[in-house]
Amino acid sequence: MSNSPINLIKGNNVVIEEGVSIGKNVSIGHNTVILEGTKIGDNIKIGCNCVLGIQANGTPSMRQITKNERSLIIKNDTKIGNMVSVYSGTFISQNVFIGDHASIRENVLIGENSVIGRAAIIELNSEIGKNCTIQTLSYITGDTTLENNVFIGPCVSMSNDKYMGAKEYFLKGPHIKDGAKIGNNASILPGITIGKKTIIGAGSVVTKDTKAEEIVVGVPAKKIKPLN
Amino acid sequence: MSNSPINLIKGNNVVIEEGVSIGKNVSIGHNTVILEGTKIGDNIKIGCNCVLGIQANGTPSMRQITKNERSLIIKNDTKIGNMVSVYSGTFISQNVFIGDHASIRENVLIGENSVIGRAAIIELNSEIGKNCTIQTLSYITGDTTLENNVFIGPCVSMSNDKYMGAKEYFLKGPHIKDGAKIGNNASILPGITIGKKTIIGAGSVVTKDTKAEEIVVGVPAKKIKPLN
Amino acid sequence: MSNSPINLIKGNNVVIEEGVSIGKNVSIGHNTVILEGTKIGDNIKIGCNCVLGIQANGTPSMRQITKNERSLIIKNDTKIGNMVSVYSGTFISQNVFIGDHASIRENVLIGENSVIGRAAIIELNSEIGKNCTIQTLSYITGDTTLENNVFIGPCVSMSNDKYMGAKEYFLKGPHIKDGAKIGNNASILPGITIGKKTIIGAGSVVTKDTKAEEIVVGVPAKKIKPLN
Repeated sequence: MSNSPINLIKGNNVVIEEGVSIGKNVSIGHNTVILEGTKIGDNIKIGCNCVLGIQANGTPSMRQITKNERSLIIKNDTKIGNMVSVYSGTFISQNVFIGDHASIRENVLIGENSVIGRAAIIELNSEIGKNCTIQTLSYITGDTTLENNVFIGPCVSMSNDKYMGAKEYFLKGPHIKDGAKIGNNASILPGITIGKKTIIGAGSVVTKDTKAEEIVVGVPAKKIKPLN
Repeated sequence: MSNSPINLIKGNNVVIEEGVSIGKNVSIGHNTVILEGTKIGDNIKIGCNCVLGIQANGTPSMRQITKNERSLIIKNDTKIGNMVSVYSGTFISQNVFIGDHASIRENVLIGENSVIGRAAIIELNSEIGKNCTIQTLSYITGDTTLENNVFIGPCVSMSNDKYMGAKEYFLKGPHIKDGAKIGNNASILPGITIGKKTIIGAGSVVTKDTKAEEIVVGVPAKKIKPLN
Repeated sequence: MSNSPINLIKGNNVVIEEGVSIGKNVSIGHNTVILEGTKIGDNIKIGCNCVLGIQANGTPSMRQITKNERSLIIKNDTKIGNMVSVYSGTFISQNVFIGDHASIRENVLIGENSVIGRAAIIELNSEIGKNCTIQTLSYITGDTTLENNVFIGPCVSMSNDKYMGAKEYFLKGPHIKDGAKIGNNASILPGITIGKKTIIGAGSVVTKDTKAEEIVVGVPAKKIKPLN
């Protein structure tokens, strides 16, 4: 640890590697690992058995990304659950909540006041806006954008690979605009744009872009009139 | 630990906080954390790297629940896998099996002889009956009731929030009656009642209540005649 | 540990039980547990907070399998992420990549150069061929065969239990032939055969076998003409 944090509450068997900085009033649960270079702000609560600041580490056939910032940065007032994994090169803004068993890859931005649900996964190069809710077990694929105030229900699935491995490096995740709401277990195809305040029904398969304030449901998802 | 357990087998780096009680013939795997106030019965096996007895801890915008019982209680003959998280204020009955990576929130009741699958998640305020099977990666949303002998296939999704965050505190999960069977990756909408011994086909989206012994399939799920 | 490994890099609080063998140039992250009898090859990187070599341990009502080999074997050049669980009696071939939070049960074979995604789960008695990709949060049920070069998108669901617990021991997972590609969040029913180079659309529910090079989409999945 590169400093002497004020009011640090540290559990048993906590590992804090070299070059980690920790602000005021931080608590770190038992058996949590904070890897090299992680920068933790003030008033942060981290649960037990987490691994934070993981270096990206793929096979040669996996994409490598170039990053200017190679640290994991966690801003003030954020809460992180138990058994959470977060990679280095990612920026977690103020007052974010990350549920137990969640995993966040490298080169991700999480905006202020957003909630990342239990066991939710956010892949590399994705940007999550402010005041978003991503519920339990949802999957945000790589190269995805969520604008602000987006609601992702539980178990939502996305993909960014139109050719399913047959061609390389044409990866593009969904772009989900401000205030859109996605129902549980919906599937969103690569490169789809979801319009502002669109509502997607539970279990829908979204194969085409949606316009602002549309409601779409079904397989494939089709526009319906507003319900109560 | 508040007692001297008989025949306790304790792995390396196990953390047992204050006020934990442990019965006879308990084994606790390496690196597992048992948090304050947890009450563990007899003949219980707990795997490695678990976190048990987590205090609920949301953001101000998340629901707080009032509970009389703030301990995690685990009754006799139960087995808990590895990397499992369970909250305080939850009651796990006798002879329950909880798979690796599973997560169970606060104020949950798990009935006798039930099986909670690998990486399955049970949210707060839910009640699981006796002899239920919840398979791998299934998601039991908050405020859900499963009666006895319910079978939930893998990757089933539920939600309890009809308004997807637009209104607060109108949350109601499904009510699934005795002996119902839900196929893999089915989606169940908020507040739905699934009748006794109903069968739901794989991948169905259940938007309406079902009656006893109905078989429903599709998106949206519709009643069909019995198949062999 | 039964040997003195060359160039072993071992994190803090690592637990290595009796009878574990470790090859050259192995690195093991903090808080990882390597259980009895695990055999680790050369040039292997293992992340933090993993549990490797778990003994199968069900309830009396769960299947027990008979195995000749009761060790976990991990061959050279394989990389394992963080918070991964792998059972004993499983064979992981050379140059495999296993993502964070993934879980692999007993009596599984993972072929060379295959990628097991983040939080993906592979149940018991399954065989994964060479050069397969199983993406994030996908679920490979028990008794499943993937031939070589299979692509499983994220959040794919399978089941092996046609009778959903009503009859015992008639379990058969899918058989997915060489080069097939399964879109995200598709559901595959028990015992289905997916033909060579079949493509399954995202969110499809596959209720019938497919022939070689077919493209199927929808609920239930039906054959369509090739798209661009």
